[in-house]
Amino acid sequence: MGTWRDVLTPGESIEVEVPASTGNVGPGYDSLGLALGHYDTVEIGVLESGLEFELHGEGCESVPRTEDHLVVRCARAAWAAAGLADQPGLRVVAHNRIPHGRGMGSSASCAVAGVVAANALLAESARLTDRQVFQVCAAIEGHPDNVAPSLHGGLTISWGEPGEWESAPVTVHDDVVPVVAIPNYEVSTALARSLLPAQVEHRAAAVNAGRAALLVEALTHRPELLLPATADALHQPFRAPAMPPSAALVSYLRDRGHAALISGAGPTVLALAPSADAGRVEAAITDFAAHPDEEREHVTWRVLRLTVPRQGARVVSHPKQ
Amino acid sequence: MGTWRDVLTPGESIEVEVPASTGNVGPGYDSLGLALGHYDTVEIGVLESGLEFELHGEGCESVPRTEDHLVVRCARAAWAAAGLADQPGLRVVAHNRIPHGRGMGSSASCAVAGVVAANALLAESARLTDRQVFQVCAAIEGHPDNVAPSLHGGLTISWGEPGEWESAPVTVHDDVVPVVAIPNYEVSTALARSLLPAQVEHRAAAVNAGRAALLVEALTHRPELLLPATADALHQPFRAPAMPPSAALVSYLRDRGHAALISGAGPTVLALAPSADAGRVEAAITDFAAHPDEEREHVTWRVLRLTVPRQGARVVSHPKQ
Repeated sequence: MGTWRDVLTPGESIEVEVPASTGNVGPGYDSLGLALGHYDTVEIGVLESGLEFELHGEGCESVPRTEDHLVVRCARAAWAAAGLADQPGLRVVAHNRIPHGRGMGSSASCAVAGVVAANALLAESARLTDRQVFQVCAAIEGHPDNVAPSLHGGLTISWGEPGEWESAPVTVHDDVVPVVAIPNYEVSTALARSLLPAQVEHRAAAVNAGRAALLVEALTHRPELLLPATADALHQPFRAPAMPPSAALVSYLRDRGHAALISGAGPTVLALAPSADAGRVEAAITDFAAHPDEEREHVTWRVLRLTVPRQGARVVSHPKQ
Repeated sequence: MGTWRDVLTPGESIEVEVPASTGNVGPGYDSLGLALGHYDTVEIGVLESGLEFELHGEGCESVPRTEDHLVVRCARAAWAAAGLADQPGLRVVAHNRIPHGRGMGSSASCAVAGVVAANALLAESARLTDRQVFQVCAAIEGHPDNVAPSLHGGLTISWGEPGEWESAPVTVHDDVVPVVAIPNYEVSTALARSLLPAQVEHRAAAVNAGRAALLVEALTHRPELLLPATADALHQPFRAPAMPPSAALVSYLRDRGHAALISGAGPTVLALAPSADAGRVEAAITDFAAHPDEEREHVTWRVLRLTVPRQGARVVSHPKQ
């Protein structure tokens, strides 16, 4: 255990860019994650003492400007894991584009940003390994599903248990285009989790496992199979009552042959389309939004055509004073 | 509908070679199949009338030498699907190496042999498409899990429903070596199926789906992940009481780091090993067999080191008279 002055330099700062992610991809409840090319950028600077914040974008008015700020907690966790006995002050500059509470992994992206930036600020001899960075991020999130794609990019298959999380990153086919429809309402992850049953039919579990296997093949080699490959029996049917407008949009798109699903714990809807179909997906979402029923009279949708980045979190500026 | 004389030539015969297969691969109950490089060869000849059999090898004494012979039924089914209003006589020469009732897909291999050979004997204009051949084979078997790898080779991910079965063939990494341990006892597939519960824990179903996804990645790119990737929560734990010696061997191998599993509905044990480990797997099976407990006093194991063939059923001799 050393003092922070041995391995950190007051005045130095580093900026990282971290992609959003979707967890629970189709049949891959609690295991499959996919990076989405929509980014938060976070800069962390080392101060002698105290905290400074410069926050822009999503959530900037509601997040605490204290030691409870997620980026601060993550930087502290990274430095503690690296063996620091004490901690310096911190300056955090964040440009948040990933919406909060919509199932796009904003908290995982934020955690990854804090840990990766804090680690990169350390003198090289003191830095955490990639595996340690992953464990610290997953420990903060409680699970690795969103942390893994935000760290590695692409598709990730995660498993394991606290302190020993594992994740296999898989490169996604170039022709897979994620189109997200982000509604103007939130669903709590805790509520969404509470709707899951304790048991499922054996038959449904078997079908679901086959589709999870198929999804890996579809995302890597055969995008034309994405519709059957995203059929899910473990979470979306049970959670639909917590997000009727999103469930209706998923059905609307799937009925038209598009591989739509609920992103993470919702309520964002994600469609995975071969690039030639992305325009049709966007048009279908527009059609759907133009004819609301009573239940979704006040729901609006922000539609974004994204990429699946091959790279996850990356340092975009080197240490500067 | 034409008469058989329009599209078949009396005296012509064709020989096909069909690999064995394993179904229910690890977490892929009812969906994942893997071809095994252990072959039956079947020759079918067109006769004016009647049936002739020349049967060698596995099961040759117990199978019926009548219209009920599986190869005959399959040839008839293929020709009926091709629109023949009547049927010729048949000569069947079989060299069966795939053991019966051991979970190595012998009936699927036999069905594939019959359909593929019968189809190849047809005049080109009358032949079934590859998709039709697959549907006929799967209809005879009742499911596509073993038929698909015997037809296509490699790993197959199957889904769908009667008449509309689908299967995605996936090329397996060169360094995956299947080692099978075939015991001298049988388990009925019907008994094995009856032991499955109607429901499973949601948590177990989710873990299982993640492992099924991981298995595709492990078999195609990362054989070092085969141990976690073959963990299963849907069939093997429930069926263990029907095959205690095999279940004990699977545990023995897995405890030593080898990716062992029950092949199909059992009781054959299959280990998937990187080639550098195949010798250690064989040695471990020998050790296990050398120290039987009371329950497996009379059990012996036939151990074969196989390949995962990239090609499935193939015609090895062209029409001859």
